[in-house]
Amino acid sequence: INSKLPGVGTTIFSVMSKLAEEHNAINLSQGFPDYPCDPLLIEKVNKAMLNGYNQYAPMPGLMSLRALVADKTNGLYHSDYHPDTDVTITAGGTQAIFTALTATIQQGDEVIIFEPAYDCYGPTVKMLGGQVKSYEMAPPDYEIDWDMVKRLFSVNTKMIILNSPHNPTGRTLSAHDMECLIKLTKGTDVLILSDEVYEHLIYDGAEHQSVARYPELRERAFIVASFGKLLHTTGWKMGYCLAPENLTKEFRKIHQFNVFSVNTPMQFGIADYLQDAGSYLGLPDFFQEKRDYFRKLLAQTKFNLLPCHGSYFQCVSYAHLNEDPDVDMAMRLITEYGVASIPVSAFYTRNTDHKVLRFCFAKKQETLEKAVERLIKL
Amino acid sequence: INSKLPGVGTTIFSVMSKLAEEHNAINLSQGFPDYPCDPLLIEKVNKAMLNGYNQYAPMPGLMSLRALVADKTNGLYHSDYHPDTDVTITAGGTQAIFTALTATIQQGDEVIIFEPAYDCYGPTVKMLGGQVKSYEMAPPDYEIDWDMVKRLFSVNTKMIILNSPHNPTGRTLSAHDMECLIKLTKGTDVLILSDEVYEHLIYDGAEHQSVARYPELRERAFIVASFGKLLHTTGWKMGYCLAPENLTKEFRKIHQFNVFSVNTPMQFGIADYLQDAGSYLGLPDFFQEKRDYFRKLLAQTKFNLLPCHGSYFQCVSYAHLNEDPDVDMAMRLITEYGVASIPVSAFYTRNTDHKVLRFCFAKKQETLEKAVERLIKL
Ligand SMILES: CSCCC(=O)C(=O)O
Ligand SMILES: CSCCC(=O)C(=O)O
Repeated sequence: INSKLPGVGTTIFSVMSKLAEEHNAINLSQGFPDYPCDPLLIEKVNKAMLNGYNQYAPMPGLMSLRALVADKTNGLYHSDYHPDTDVTITAGGTQAIFTALTATIQQGDEVIIFEPAYDCYGPTVKMLGGQVKSYEMAPPDYEIDWDMVKRLFSVNTKMIILNSPHNPTGRTLSAHDMECLIKLTKGTDVLILSDEVYEHLIYDGAEHQSVARYPELRERAFIVASFGKLLHTTGWKMGYCLAPENLTKEFRKIHQFNVFSVNTPMQFGIADYLQDAGSYLGLPDFFQEKRDYFRKLLAQTKFNLLPCHGSYFQCVSYAHLNEDPDVDMAMRLITEYGVASIPVSAFYTRNTDHKVLRFCFAKKQETLEKAVERLIKL
Repeated sequence: INSKLPGVGTTIFSVMSKLAEEHNAINLSQGFPDYPCDPLLIEKVNKAMLNGYNQYAPMPGLMSLRALVADKTNGLYHSDYHPDTDVTITAGGTQAIFTALTATIQQGDEVIIFEPAYDCYGPTVKMLGGQVKSYEMAPPDYEIDWDMVKRLFSVNTKMIILNSPHNPTGRTLSAHDMECLIKLTKGTDVLILSDEVYEHLIYDGAEHQSVARYPELRERAFIVASFGKLLHTTGWKMGYCLAPENLTKEFRKIHQFNVFSVNTPMQFGIADYLQDAGSYLGLPDFFQEKRDYFRKLLAQTKFNLLPCHGSYFQCVSYAHLNEDPDVDMAMRLITEYGVASIPVSAFYTRNTDHKVLRFCFAKKQETLEKAVERLIKL
């Protein structure tokens, strides 16, 4: 058969996590916690299963969970999402992204993507017949020059994909960025896909610049978020998509044929938990402590620390050292030093290598200590 | 935005289940059990969560679960699926179908579908730029005349979609059907998508004619199955796809960008449960008892019973009565009699109305009794 994704191999996350296992390395590559989630959350899911909530959920998701999501979002960002028409529960953030793209991108459409970029955006756009227009950001600050972004727009521009807090760089969009974006898209039909899965992982007291804050943006946007990142359960594959009614309508048409509905007891359990928890309000502090500790440890290594304003990733540069390309460097770190990372060139379509590696710090203190003990030897 | 699925509304399952709820009707429409699953299965999932298996599973699924699936299939059908290269765990049967179609169907490809057909096949094919070539089966036996099927083939035929045991009719493919199919596809490149989610719901001692039994077919086939139907947990949205290595490779490329991976504790729990259970061996008897009982009850009504050889659906015809089209009839049954069914015309692209309704009998004895008490009044 003709491949719909010819150049595509296995994602870098699978490759690195597998290598980490084979070499018994400390896995700071794929982004997931190595500490337990709240036992109360597990109790709630178990209760839902025992109560018999094991058959199909409504196609767009449980109404109680959708209502909580709408309330939370509207409360935080002064938006006006309605659970009935604007919220869909998905099998993780990735399924929400894939579904939003499938619902909108057609042959010849152009999509603007900021690179380095999470690795599903580009291939999915191309698979749908779209064309990727990349804006390459560079270390140390991965700044966006919006005048340069403007040049990527054409009559065929269908969508712009945002991701803040940003994976892999930890960059966050500022209020100034948002103003530029509003100016740039005003009077156009350009859609926005805003990947905000790290919404609550934002540091130094900054406010998350959700697209939901801006009426001019959210009226044309799909916003994707993740319960996995909210609740330290990335393997539950639970997320959601917010979008105004006309976009949600198209989103759900694809959703219903893609997965039809999403895990019922997990939806009940999460809804039950979020009702009396508000636990996620502590997330920024929880992760900032990890970030600060990890940065302090890493300062002992030869690496240069890049800024980290959000997400669970810390990037380091070794461009000042006389060393191999980042893919080889990441390999050496696994095989010779026993620490798995992600080479950031894997997030650039053209594999641009700035000699930057990404480490995930959503880990127990001991894990971070052990990893840096090994990295110091470099 | 231009809709990628213009004519598509909400699935008939959502429509009917919602109506059933609004009218407090007995819901024999959407296919799902109303009795509890085995508590041991819940215990296993809970154990997996408590043991900390809450982060990303490997992209293609847990190896232990894939191994069990391969062993089960190879044992039953003398096939040779390899867990590493040929099995992928999915977020339900629907996600497997959508992913297989997305991986293979391109602009201009023709896909042969037997109607009445489960409602996701056709729209998904069209959304991908493919063209649906329908073979319409008719009551009472929904027989397939393979000489007529042959006429649907062209140089553009990319795939033929099978579904046995069949939803909505309960028809099963016979060994003769399989021989005809082998003859028809021999020497061609035509792919097969075989939806076998009701694999174990097969009655009167018949053997399931899985595509996996036939080397000439399985070498070009995606076979889709469902843990939800196997374990009475349709809401867990867990399934899998079997396909030879070259097809699985393309399947996984889409899978990794669609959902990346599938719920981890559910995978662990199901693997753990299937290890020491073999419980599904009792499924045919369990459901045949329900079928037989439901048929006995329905014999008291004005409906004519159609044959049911598999699945959890019993179809009835009322063509001999002077009554409304099936959609109106289904509405009347809900609003006036308090019983929800599915009008089978919803499964035909052209809404062909043979005045047939589908009832789901995966229900407690009392539920079936209560429903028929009401239907007798008609
Ligand atoms: C879906 S696997 C990748 C997890 C993740 O978000 C990352 O490591 O970047
Ligand atoms: C995915 S909802 C539909 C369930 C089902 O298989 C049916 O009712 O036909």
